[in-house]
Amino acid sequence: MSRFWSPFVKDLVPYVPGEQPKVENLVKLNTNENPYGPSPLVVDAIQAELNDSLRLYPAPNADALKDEIARYYGVQQSQVFVGNGSDEVLAHIFHGLFQHGKPVLFPDITYSFYPVYCGLYGIEAAPQPLRDDFTIDTADYAKPNGGIIFPNPNAPTGVGLPLAGIEAILAANPDSVVVVDEAYVDFGGETAIALVERYPNLLVTQTLSKSRSLAGLRVGLAVGHADLIEALERIKNSFNSYPLDRLAIVGAVAAFKDQGWFDQTRQAVIRSREALSAALGERGFEVLPSQANFVFARHGNRDAAGLAQGLREHKVIVRHFKQPRIDQFLRITIGTEAQNAALLAALDTLL
Amino acid sequence: MSRFWSPFVKDLVPYVPGEQPKVENLVKLNTNENPYGPSPLVVDAIQAELNDSLRLYPAPNADALKDEIARYYGVQQSQVFVGNGSDEVLAHIFHGLFQHGKPVLFPDITYSFYPVYCGLYGIEAAPQPLRDDFTIDTADYAKPNGGIIFPNPNAPTGVGLPLAGIEAILAANPDSVVVVDEAYVDFGGETAIALVERYPNLLVTQTLSKSRSLAGLRVGLAVGHADLIEALERIKNSFNSYPLDRLAIVGAVAAFKDQGWFDQTRQAVIRSREALSAALGERGFEVLPSQANFVFARHGNRDAAGLAQGLREHKVIVRHFKQPRIDQFLRITIGTEAQNAALLAALDTLL
Repeated sequence: MSRFWSPFVKDLVPYVPGEQPKVENLVKLNTNENPYGPSPLVVDAIQAELNDSLRLYPAPNADALKDEIARYYGVQQSQVFVGNGSDEVLAHIFHGLFQHGKPVLFPDITYSFYPVYCGLYGIEAAPQPLRDDFTIDTADYAKPNGGIIFPNPNAPTGVGLPLAGIEAILAANPDSVVVVDEAYVDFGGETAIALVERYPNLLVTQTLSKSRSLAGLRVGLAVGHADLIEALERIKNSFNSYPLDRLAIVGAVAAFKDQGWFDQTRQAVIRSREALSAALGERGFEVLPSQANFVFARHGNRDAAGLAQGLREHKVIVRHFKQPRIDQFLRITIGTEAQNAALLAALDTLL
Repeated sequence: MSRFWSPFVKDLVPYVPGEQPKVENLVKLNTNENPYGPSPLVVDAIQAELNDSLRLYPAPNADALKDEIARYYGVQQSQVFVGNGSDEVLAHIFHGLFQHGKPVLFPDITYSFYPVYCGLYGIEAAPQPLRDDFTIDTADYAKPNGGIIFPNPNAPTGVGLPLAGIEAILAANPDSVVVVDEAYVDFGGETAIALVERYPNLLVTQTLSKSRSLAGLRVGLAVGHADLIEALERIKNSFNSYPLDRLAIVGAVAAFKDQGWFDQTRQAVIRSREALSAALGERGFEVLPSQANFVFARHGNRDAAGLAQGLREHKVIVRHFKQPRIDQFLRITIGTEAQNAALLAALDTLL
């Protein structure tokens, strides 16, 4: 630590993203990227913007993208916020909507960036234990809090919470913001965006990194009551006037326009997930029911860390969390059919 | 205001960027964009990355770009930080290096985002008056402080501070971080990066938005002692793992590789600035000596707001700040020769 640091910096425990390996020819099933590329319309749109106009600032309000998202979800532009990946959107949420001097509630097993944001903004984190079957017990979210957040489906489990459960949490917390982080919702979950008209305390976040195959472009969004969006806009406009670059804006608009590509690729992922889940089951794994583009699985009698290491030696990388309750699980991203077959072949040599 | 907002949000006074007009055919001299496009190597590099790899996350540490910047400036990679535009870099600096319970010092006439960052992070702002000739009086920066920041050359004045002045401030503040914001340095200033080896309290920020014609791509950087960079990395990794997208990383690398384009375009801007300054002088303007890609000028007997409005009616937009001491100035971005001629022609109908 340095005397120049703001004092809280020494206590920060940053998030550790999944490895982005620099060697080629790996079967990369560790960061929940989409195995299929983005819509060709996205590439075309960026291509058309790839010219001298890069000398000009982007539209600071990214109106074209907000309008497209508003149209897509049938809401007003004032109910839409966009950011440089949903991680930036989440950071602004913790900063602008969760600082109320009370703990923020989220599952004990969830996206591990949430406690990091708490550290960044001096917020008390109050993890709530998932049930033994890794479902959320909505009764845990009725205690006093400064905000509530959970992914739906949850990560790294893939387990979904039905909308009725979300409504129970919303109704029990009329004075708190409830954030439903829908990073993976398009692979079989049900979006809570339809509920924003009835619950002014609901904020839904999504990302274009997963179901729209644009992890490399960095675009995330939030939909909710205009009052909640205004808080995020105030933070954003006090932080960075232009978080989305010109290419990201046009690419993201195009991604929402190509419903056919979106449906085709996410259905392919869903089919592969079901096939992979069955194949893992046949090999002695318990696979949690997944609504995401990954599965969370533990073997009946083989250590997860050892399996992860063995897979790596076969050039297949999956994610293993050294964390209580889940240290015997592997989180395996759904790949192409060839990648999934390579995973199973590698497992067959290890089991 | 909403009960859901973190309390400080209601007091935020966001930054207002220069207008990004949606109508075409304007002579846009209001946001200090480069009149020339980026290097063709930038476009080629982005083109080469515009493919299915967009499905994959970027390199979280943007090593390729950090390595290129380190090579360019002859420093170590550990002395380089990169962000989603220099505004994001500056935000992290205020957050991670300026929260010491003491006021942060900056000029009273300067980049108006600095007091906004103070508001965002609860830091007291202590503006220090520029001299009557709009130069910095380094003696003002010897009082107790939690950090010091100023652009060099300053904005919106364009006036530079010689490196000896910067060293005087650095030497007077061994326990504070001194940030030199070099957004415009490539148009005639002298970078302080050579001083980072001698001053562990010096942090230099730059942007690719101006001299490298990439305002639309959003890339900024900081160079300083590895201890200062580590604070920024901790903040960044607690905020957003991947602030730079795949296209921005490769485009920015290419921008640093094309020294010829960089020199050719910035020299053209400098030549045009000197010609425009002279032409404005002939028309009754006092023009501050500029080291930037804009001039700051006031007319001897014509009101600045009226001139700005008159120019707009001739489809020429410049920036006017309704702010004490400078409300009779216009900030005029250096355009192409044709744009500068259009500005002068419009002025000739107004004067």
